[in-house]
Amino acid sequence: MNIETELQTQHAVPEIPPVDPALDEALRHKIDTKTKPIGALGLLEDVALQLGRMQQTLAPTVRRPAIVVFAADHGITAEGVSPYPQEVTAQMVANFLAGGAAINAFAEAHDIALTVVDAGVACEIPGASRPRDARIGAGTANMRIESAMTGAELREALRQGQLIADELADAGTNLAGFGEMGIGNTSAATVLTHLLTGTPVAACTGRGTGLDDTGLARKIDTLEDVARRVRGALDTEPCASPAAVLRECGGFEIAMMTGAMLGGAARGVGIVVDGFIAGAALLAAAALRPAVLDYCIFAHRSEEPGHAAQLRHLGARPLLDLNMRLGEGTGAALAIPLVRSATAFMNNMASFESAGVSDRADD
Amino acid sequence: MNIETELQTQHAVPEIPPVDPALDEALRHKIDTKTKPIGALGLLEDVALQLGRMQQTLAPTVRRPAIVVFAADHGITAEGVSPYPQEVTAQMVANFLAGGAAINAFAEAHDIALTVVDAGVACEIPGASRPRDARIGAGTANMRIESAMTGAELREALRQGQLIADELADAGTNLAGFGEMGIGNTSAATVLTHLLTGTPVAACTGRGTGLDDTGLARKIDTLEDVARRVRGALDTEPCASPAAVLRECGGFEIAMMTGAMLGGAARGVGIVVDGFIAGAALLAAAALRPAVLDYCIFAHRSEEPGHAAQLRHLGARPLLDLNMRLGEGTGAALAIPLVRSATAFMNNMASFESAGVSDRADD
Repeated sequence: MNIETELQTQHAVPEIPPVDPALDEALRHKIDTKTKPIGALGLLEDVALQLGRMQQTLAPTVRRPAIVVFAADHGITAEGVSPYPQEVTAQMVANFLAGGAAINAFAEAHDIALTVVDAGVACEIPGASRPRDARIGAGTANMRIESAMTGAELREALRQGQLIADELADAGTNLAGFGEMGIGNTSAATVLTHLLTGTPVAACTGRGTGLDDTGLARKIDTLEDVARRVRGALDTEPCASPAAVLRECGGFEIAMMTGAMLGGAARGVGIVVDGFIAGAALLAAAALRPAVLDYCIFAHRSEEPGHAAQLRHLGARPLLDLNMRLGEGTGAALAIPLVRSATAFMNNMASFESAGVSDRADD
Repeated sequence: MNIETELQTQHAVPEIPPVDPALDEALRHKIDTKTKPIGALGLLEDVALQLGRMQQTLAPTVRRPAIVVFAADHGITAEGVSPYPQEVTAQMVANFLAGGAAINAFAEAHDIALTVVDAGVACEIPGASRPRDARIGAGTANMRIESAMTGAELREALRQGQLIADELADAGTNLAGFGEMGIGNTSAATVLTHLLTGTPVAACTGRGTGLDDTGLARKIDTLEDVARRVRGALDTEPCASPAAVLRECGGFEIAMMTGAMLGGAARGVGIVVDGFIAGAALLAAAALRPAVLDYCIFAHRSEEPGHAAQLRHLGARPLLDLNMRLGEGTGAALAIPLVRSATAFMNNMASFESAGVSDRADD
């Protein structure tokens, strides 16, 4: 039994209902008869159409928008791929819990609920506040040497992610962004992007939290090593597979995001896709269940070079391009006001007829 | 006396205090010690620095953000440059007053105060609600044949705009966007852009509210005619000047926006610059008072081709690029949540020290 079949049997990869295009024509008509030139609201019109289709209504809403930040550590940090020590993951989790990180500032500014999840932080989290516990382990293994996680750990990470998405949907959330914190996770995302899109490692590798040129060269060498090991390991699989790739070089937070994306889409929740790390989680999710993409709104274009490869592979155009590269779901948080704007025009703008505005003279 | 000197004597073009860079180093330090990699918030860091500089504080705010929509008509519509009839300007003003336009939906969604100003609408505005009255006349004259407005009308439009900006500043607004409505105003903006940037008319001319190919070709021919007439007229001026260009081929709403931008900057109010029409108003403002640019945050990249020429000329990079081309200040309204996000991270994020997060290992 290959790993995908196994995961399905164990309900770790949900079915995603295909989006029904039945309302598309009525949605397009509603958008086109608003008091504006045809197409004048650009990408916001696409977002409105997509939300209406997802929610199967001509009056789509953004209800209880939420961001979940998944934190975990990465064994690959032993190879010196990040200028920050692993302790920073735990310290930043404490910072999220104390309300001091960028994602806190943005979530508060835009009225977005924020949950912090320990998916597998290696060090002790300072302070008294605790994140939601969904720990798979004390960080992944060093993927240069061995599989980042076991099949059982992968399954558990996917299931925990799905569980969290289910809880959001149960609470009435219909739009969710997933963010992450994990020193070393640009390395995991880089190898995932390389293996799932075919883009060369060097073209996917960025400076992460701020490597210098020497550090960047070392990171590329290390990740090429990882990719060689993983390709060797996958050759022995009955069928090379996205789930096996995720097991070999994912992270607990990344696999849990994959699970949350699949679980959210399975419940009809719109997914606001953050940047490079979230994109790697989505590459795996889309390889497992292509229908997840119907539920995805791409938030922003990250500065990390591998993100461009992901967006090309998925044929996606994000709403924002602000030269950001922070993670935490910050790009998703900034895109949510734009999604709200799309629902605002759909629900609150008059039509030419209702407003008594003359349509084009030549019609 | 040339027209600039005359306008200055008549207090229609205010002095703009140069921005003081004294706090720049402290602002940069505050931004760089936030719990994030250096530069990871991209353009939002630039916005935070700019706001801090404008407001001369390490804790910049967005206070009572406002959008003012200026509406007026254009004599050039007699030449068939728009597929919509001139009545639509008045009908859209009624739509703004009734809350049914895109700018209403966005202003409401993002808690932005909205004012609608009649700068010179030609037709009767339907319904009982009235816009703020700052009428200069019943639309401009046909700029293909004669000056769009007189020097006295230009002066009055600039002064009314300045007055409105003063009122905003008096009410405590420290961030304002200026939008517009005026059938035919992409034609005015096109000729202004051509004359103030040197970009050829054809490269600045777009489809406006939706011209077909024949309509676009006719618009280009018409506007090349206008540009020839204006160049001839300006040759007889003692000194060819931005104010004279505005008089020859501006609109009442455009000149009033120019006045509002100058007046806002003179009071230290941040200006969120909308798209193509607002950009034309700013070209004139910046030609009169280059310091106005220190107060400008560019909201979005419009689909109108002339906007790219403006942005190149001003060396500006907008925050958003959503393929929009609606006007009304809609781009500005969508950018205001991003500006709020910049102040949110400046004021609410912890520093590495305050959060107890280790800084880079190699520092």
